[in-house]
Amino acid sequence: METQQLITPAQLLEHWKGHRDLTRRVIEAFPEDKLLNYSIGGMRTFAQLAHELLDLADTGVQGMATGNWESRPGMNHHKDAFTSKEALLAAWDETTKRIDEMFPQITAERWLQVDKAFGQFENTTIGTLMYFLDNENHHRGQGYVYLRSLGIEPPAFWDRVSLG
Amino acid sequence: METQQLITPAQLLEHWKGHRDLTRRVIEAFPEDKLLNYSIGGMRTFAQLAHELLDLADTGVQGMATGNWESRPGMNHHKDAFTSKEALLAAWDETTKRIDEMFPQITAERWLQVDKAFGQFENTTIGTLMYFLDNENHHRGQGYVYLRSLGIEPPAFWDRVSLG
Repeated sequence: METQQLITPAQLLEHWKGHRDLTRRVIEAFPEDKLLNYSIGGMRTFAQLAHELLDLADTGVQGMATGNWESRPGMNHHKDAFTSKEALLAAWDETTKRIDEMFPQITAERWLQVDKAFGQFENTTIGTLMYFLDNENHHRGQGYVYLRSLGIEPPAFWDRVSLG
Repeated sequence: METQQLITPAQLLEHWKGHRDLTRRVIEAFPEDKLLNYSIGGMRTFAQLAHELLDLADTGVQGMATGNWESRPGMNHHKDAFTSKEALLAAWDETTKRIDEMFPQITAERWLQVDKAFGQFENTTIGTLMYFLDNENHHRGQGYVYLRSLGIEPPAFWDRVSLG
């Protein structure tokens, strides 16, 4: 008997894109100066947190598809920084296009193959993608607290295209 | 050709339990008075956020396995409240046992069946579980900000049993 997939790659793509679309709206909800300069308890700014998510997505989809985990120029969140909301959002949208292009290139074999994400995090491709999703939820949730502390209503967490 | 599962139910169980174990350590990291009374920007306390996660897990695993979405006494996060850290942690551990018992009862057919979670959120069982995972990451991430704002170092996000 054929095993039915619990989750298909096409569903994971939609699920991930739904999360990224919500994160984009969280970035947009920040006034630019707060996006770039505000944080709580010594944490990173939301621009920095979003840059990490962007790097994981941009370099991540490339790495998952091809095994090349080198960030493109300007994308490395350990080295680079965005200095405007507009530039961050433009990069975000560029990465969305890359995801649309590269995600479908991840082969059935590749999904279950073990690789070292970013040269250091050993996991299957599906395990790595689950980490990216968890990490995006984690840091975006932190952005919600930043926004609430600024008196700004964040977009609804459940308002996104998701699995189902 | 047989389709290979990207994720198996057994892996999802480990993944979920890894997240719940981390959330438990975040609850533990709060001094009891801050757990019960502290929040930022008019949000819920972490005891209240954790209660939601607990309800979603406890009622959720029962609903996913059996279709009965009625919360057990004391579990309904809209109606009930925990008044001590000890009681919350005890309930957390009880739910872990329930998950161990009921999760394996979710049938292959049930995973892809559409149901109304909690009588209102229409989704497949796998889609509902993905929502629970996303939601736990989201709210636990908020707990990290609460802890940081109190000068308390949270447990490492990546330090958990996960898929891979």
